[in-house]
Amino acid sequence: MASAPKIYVAVVGVGLLVSLTSTTRTIFNHANPITSPSSWKSDLAASVDRPDLPKLTEKLSALVSPSQKVALIDNTSSEDVAALYPTWIKAGISVITPNKKAFSGDIALYEQIVAASKTGGRFLNEATVGAGLPVIGTLKDLVATGDKIIKIEGVFSGTMSYIFNEFSTGKPDGPAFSSVVSTAREKGYTEPHPADDLNGFDVARKLTILSRIVSHSPSSSALPKLQSFTSVQTASLIPPELENIPSGDEFISRLPEFDDHFAKMRAAASAEGKVLRFVGVVDVLNGQVRAGLEKYPTTHPFATSLGGSDNIIMFHTERYGERPLIVQGAGAGAAVTAMGVLGDLLKLA
Amino acid sequence: MASAPKIYVAVVGVGLLVSLTSTTRTIFNHANPITSPSSWKSDLAASVDRPDLPKLTEKLSALVSPSQKVALIDNTSSEDVAALYPTWIKAGISVITPNKKAFSGDIALYEQIVAASKTGGRFLNEATVGAGLPVIGTLKDLVATGDKIIKIEGVFSGTMSYIFNEFSTGKPDGPAFSSVVSTAREKGYTEPHPADDLNGFDVARKLTILSRIVSHSPSSSALPKLQSFTSVQTASLIPPELENIPSGDEFISRLPEFDDHFAKMRAAASAEGKVLRFVGVVDVLNGQVRAGLEKYPTTHPFATSLGGSDNIIMFHTERYGERPLIVQGAGAGAAVTAMGVLGDLLKLA
Repeated sequence: MASAPKIYVAVVGVGLLVSLTSTTRTIFNHANPITSPSSWKSDLAASVDRPDLPKLTEKLSALVSPSQKVALIDNTSSEDVAALYPTWIKAGISVITPNKKAFSGDIALYEQIVAASKTGGRFLNEATVGAGLPVIGTLKDLVATGDKIIKIEGVFSGTMSYIFNEFSTGKPDGPAFSSVVSTAREKGYTEPHPADDLNGFDVARKLTILSRIVSHSPSSSALPKLQSFTSVQTASLIPPELENIPSGDEFISRLPEFDDHFAKMRAAASAEGKVLRFVGVVDVLNGQVRAGLEKYPTTHPFATSLGGSDNIIMFHTERYGERPLIVQGAGAGAAVTAMGVLGDLLKLA
Repeated sequence: MASAPKIYVAVVGVGLLVSLTSTTRTIFNHANPITSPSSWKSDLAASVDRPDLPKLTEKLSALVSPSQKVALIDNTSSEDVAALYPTWIKAGISVITPNKKAFSGDIALYEQIVAASKTGGRFLNEATVGAGLPVIGTLKDLVATGDKIIKIEGVFSGTMSYIFNEFSTGKPDGPAFSSVVSTAREKGYTEPHPADDLNGFDVARKLTILSRIVSHSPSSSALPKLQSFTSVQTASLIPPELENIPSGDEFISRLPEFDDHFAKMRAAASAEGKVLRFVGVVDVLNGQVRAGLEKYPTTHPFATSLGGSDNIIMFHTERYGERPLIVQGAGAGAAVTAMGVLGDLLKLA
């Protein structure tokens, strides 16, 4: 979804906000921390200092001491910022972020982060999957307390949730696929270019993050080591003919050509008493991580309980047996993402 | 449910198990911590030392230091043990427990615990509601990050969940109420005396715990200050004629006299397209905390998604808007209760 915060890197030392950085400006004021919730935007806009992450790293590192915790909140979705996590964490600066890049990209970066966190700062990324929903924390608790994860299965994309909750209700017919996508775009539920949602990469990234947490468990030996989110078996919904269309408007205007294709899939699912849902699966037992369109009975929680643009995540584990642990609710949006980030900050403090 | 652990008080200092206490025996060995997962039972049984909580308090207090965290895990359901929490927490000993007594009993004890934790040890009680499900942690995060809780609504008793999932499926008829309760008892899902479940007190206690967490939020002014779980408006399912029957067997043998009463309620619900569920509600907006039988449409998650002896908890909040944050899964049993306790211990460490 398009609603993730994208602009600022904020910095906190011992609960005090000492720095803010946007793509064009920065403030650093340790002696006189930022306290006004009303003026920080104008203060930042008025700053003449340009962002300088190496300098920021240096200044923050100097604040780290046994009696003072320093945290950096990365609210960007930048790969460049993510690449600095190992440096920060090694320096004792904890990183809190909804940015998926570092945890779902190249395995080498992820392993550097994990290694650095053994002796340095921590990394807290609850908001990378399901925003404020207790997903990462719950999975970490299950793994840390020795439960055996069998399968994680869910609707991880709010955009995909909305599209298929509207498109496939169990009946053989319904609205055209292109009209549902078009409405979702008008409501701001998709990225400006809907292909950025329909390619399934957002789901693949979230699955990579979860899969890597599970891989710390001794009972996960069948699970493949994902080199990157591109290693996830992802069945994109973009028709091959529309693969490289640069503009969202053109993409939307051509999508009706494929309505028939999606309508046939919906009818086939309905004939089996099922709905279509775009899901992500970390199948630990069978060593498979996949994202794509799957069919679920109309009596399944993915059909009955889901609505709006909710996420739903099922943890099938040895301890929970036949009935999984389920977490459901809004998984995107500024307020619930901020909750995930702030919750992590409070845990650190 | 009858499966909550009931016997031991175990003690941990810096990750080392230094003491175990049952109702009849105790071990304390700081120099030589208990490390064997196989022999602790026989070691404890072989001890000649009788439990002595004041002496234990003294010994543990002596271990508390700035460099050493001490935690006491109370796996009993004892009021006497719960009464010692303020003493322990004041002495810097953190308390981790699935025991609901201290948090749902007299408000004075609860307030002493909260006051002591401001300067002393912490109290961690995730397992008091929903066992290992992320209920307490999620609610604390919502409150701490400034969300406004509007209503918490759920099926909080695994026993009640099983009974009504079997008894009321939306159809006008079905099995007799007494036969469902009898089966639940045979499966070990109820207390030996089913009245101990049907009185609703277990749900009232859980609601008290949640309600007191919500009361730390500035937007909870309408919420009544619960003097004790007995202040919750609880609609017991025990027929008045069976109120004081001392034995579980006799209770079960007389319950069929009331099958007609329950069958009529089921038929009335069915005629409205609804099912019966025994729920707990913390209605923050309207200032009401209640436990009892309510009717839900057959399309509601309490009807469609619930099964077995699952708990389900919905958090309706300002941030989550029209679609609540939902947590669902097994909410009782030794393994998932132990997970809640161990998860708390890992958070402390």
